[in-house]
Parts: sequence; structure tokens; C-alpha cells
Amino acid sequence: MDITDLQNRLRDFAAARDWDPYLTPKNLAMALVVESAELVEIFQWKTAEESQQLSPEDHQHLGEEIADVLMYLLQIADRAGVDVPMAVERKIAMNARKYPAPTA
Amino acid sequence: MDITDLQNRLRDFAAARDWDPYLTPKNLAMALVVESAELVEIFQWKTAEESQQLSPEDHQHLGEEIADVLMYLLQIADRAGVDVPMAVERKIAMNARKYPAPTA
Amino acid sequence: MDITDLQNRLRDFAAARDWDPYLTPKNLAMALVVESAELVEIFQWKTAEESQQLSPEDHQHLGEEIADVLMYLLQIADRAGVDVPMAVERKIAMNARKYPAPTA
Amino acid sequence: MDITDLQNRLRDFAAARDWDPYLTPKNLAMALVVESAELVEIFQWKTAEESQQLSPEDHQHLGEEIADVLMYLLQIADRAGVDVPMAVERKIAMNARKYPAPTA
Repeated sequence: MDITDLQNRLRDFAAARDWDPYLTPKNLAMALVVESAELVEIFQWKTAEESQQLSPEDHQHLGEEIADVLMYLLQIADRAGVDVPMAVERKIAMNARKYPAPTA
Repeated sequence: MDITDLQNRLRDFAAARDWDPYLTPKNLAMALVVESAELVEIFQWKTAEESQQLSPEDHQHLGEEIADVLMYLLQIADRAGVDVPMAVERKIAMNARKYPAPTA
Repeated sequence: MDITDLQNRLRDFAAARDWDPYLTPKNLAMALVVESAELVEIFQWKTAEESQQLSPEDHQHLGEEIADVLMYLLQIADRAGVDVPMAVERKIAMNARKYPAPTA
Repeated sequence: MDITDLQNRLRDFAAARDWDPYLTPKNLAMALVVESAELVEIFQWKTAEESQQLSPEDHQHLGEEIADVLMYLLQIADRAGVDVPMAVERKIAMNARKYPAPTA
């Protein structure tokens, strides 16, 4: 899965439906948190253990929500000009400094 | 950026810090929505126009939140056994059926 | 609307349905953010102006989501032993110090 | 705590700071989900049991987040013209129909 390729496909999909005026970073951020909460909803009444053993229906549903979150996230990055792989590398480096691994 | 490779790096990062007991799908879903809301916070008082012209500080901040959301999302998929590229292709196909493009 | 009275009614409603084991503060917090995001969903593709002129259907839907958010919030406070009116007064005082009103 | 009285105080607080242009229902919905997620953050790495035995610091923090959520929620209701007690009664009646109590 190539991120830039996927971003281009999402851009074409939106353009063909005249959705561009709606897809501001502000609105996309709202859609992102809505989809993230739909993913949370799958787990809200489950115990920690149950959350690790999903039924086929929940597993299928989870896949759909993961896809929704990812697609909104990549559209935000695309429209705001954020390079996703670079942002990830920078954040991993920040986390490694913030939480140094214990030495043996 | 290869998704499986990134998932393996995040798995190693967590294991080296003994974080595995915390990283249930339930807890990771909570972390995902928390990070998604931090991304929302960047835009909450901005107009649609302002959300399209971020300051360098906001742009940098947005990159960090995008990385955080993506890393929690990929960890959920990894620990719940969801194939991300397959889930995305399936969801794009569903969306294409649900929202057919107008013909010329 | 008396808060303590409403909290008691919600407590009785849950007890009559054997829901208590599910209503931990952790799970209720998840339900709270899910309902808050359903409220966000009403506004996600609307302009600022449109968000101020809701259709009767959206207005009715908004009322339902406001009720859901409030009921989960009061259940969290009840089960975690937080006195809501006292917490509100304390937070208003904090906000007044943090954001002093400009003098004429 | 009287809801209308509290809504009036929040309205005066905002007016004295010239915040009204920012306080559209759309923006307030974003602020609501941000504060709800800050409440979620308190519980994200805690077990169900730990979430029921908060430290004094977490208990204090929870009170602040509950107040923040409630104040944004009441501002949304105020600016969108939703009668909160009426919305709550209607939702409780809907829930009672949807989830009938088991008979003895």
C-alpha cells in the first residue's frame, strides 16, 4: 500500500463527487474523531480480555473502522501538506528520547 | 513507508519497555481517540479558511498528531489481526457502491 | 432538573437491568466520548452558519445526543464520587483567573 | 445547580471576553469532544479496577474534565435552543422502551 498513491485515489474519488468544498482540514478532523469513536464503540462494554478475542462480525467491523480512520487521516495530511512517513520518523525519534529503553 | 515494517518496529519498541500488558485493543482504541481529539483541538476555534493556512507551529503540531494517530491505529490492526491494505481496498469498494460517481 | 435525583434514577435504571458490572468509570468514559462524537457528526459537514440554523430533524437529533452525553457524564461523576456543582464552581473560578475579563 | 442560571453565567463570561464569534455550535461540538477525550485519557492505561480507585490527583483532574464537558455541553444546548431537562426526560423514556426492565 503506497500512501501517496492512496492519497491520489482519495483525491480523485472526492473530485468526481464534487466533495472538495467540504473537505477542509477542519471538517476532516471532525470526521476523523467521529470514525475513531466508532472504533472505540466496538470495545466500550468489552473487558480487556474480550477485546483481544473478537467475533468474526466485530473483526470485520473493526477492519471497516480502521480503514475509515486511515482514509480521513491521509486526506488531512494530503490537504494540509504533511509528509506522513517523515512525520512518523520524527515522532518515533521523539518517543525514543522521551521513553528511553531500560538497559539490561 | 511499509506498514508491516512499521508495525514490527512499534512492536519491538513496546516490548523493550514492557508495555505489552497495556496495549490491549481496548486501551489502544482509547489512545486512538485521545490522539484524534488532540488533532481536532488544533482546528477547533479556526474558521474553515484558517484551517487551510496553518502557521509553521500548527503545521508541525499537526504532523505530530497525525503520526500519533497512525501509530496507534497500526498497533490496533497489528494486535487485532487486521490486514490494513486489504481493509482499505474493501472499504473503498464499499464507498464506491454507496456513493456512485455522477456520470457526465 | 436536580442532578442528584437524576443520578439516582440512572442508578436504579442500571441496577434493574444488571448493568452495574459494565458501568466502570473506564467504560463510561468510552461511552461518553462515543456520544460526544455522535454529536460532532451532526455538524461535521456543515458550515459555521449552517450549524446555527438546524433543521427540525437535526435539532431533535441534537437533543438526543445532548441527553446521552449528559447522562453518561453524570454516571461517571456518581460512580467516581465527584460532586458536579462543586467541580463546576471550581472550574469557573479557575477560568476567571486564567482568562481575566478586559476592563473598560 | 440551576441549568438556566449556569447557562446565563457562561453566556456573560463569553460576552465579556468577546468570544461569541467563536462559540458556534460547530466549534463548541469540537471543544466538547476534545474535553471528553481528555477525560478518557485519565483512564486509558488503567484497568477496570484501577478506574474505580482513583488517586487524589486523578480524582481532582476528573472533576475538572467533568466540569469542562458539562460547560461546553450546556453552551451547545443554549446556543442551539435545546431544553436540556426536556431532552433528558424524552431520552430516558426512549431508553425505557428500548431496554425494558426484566420482570421478576
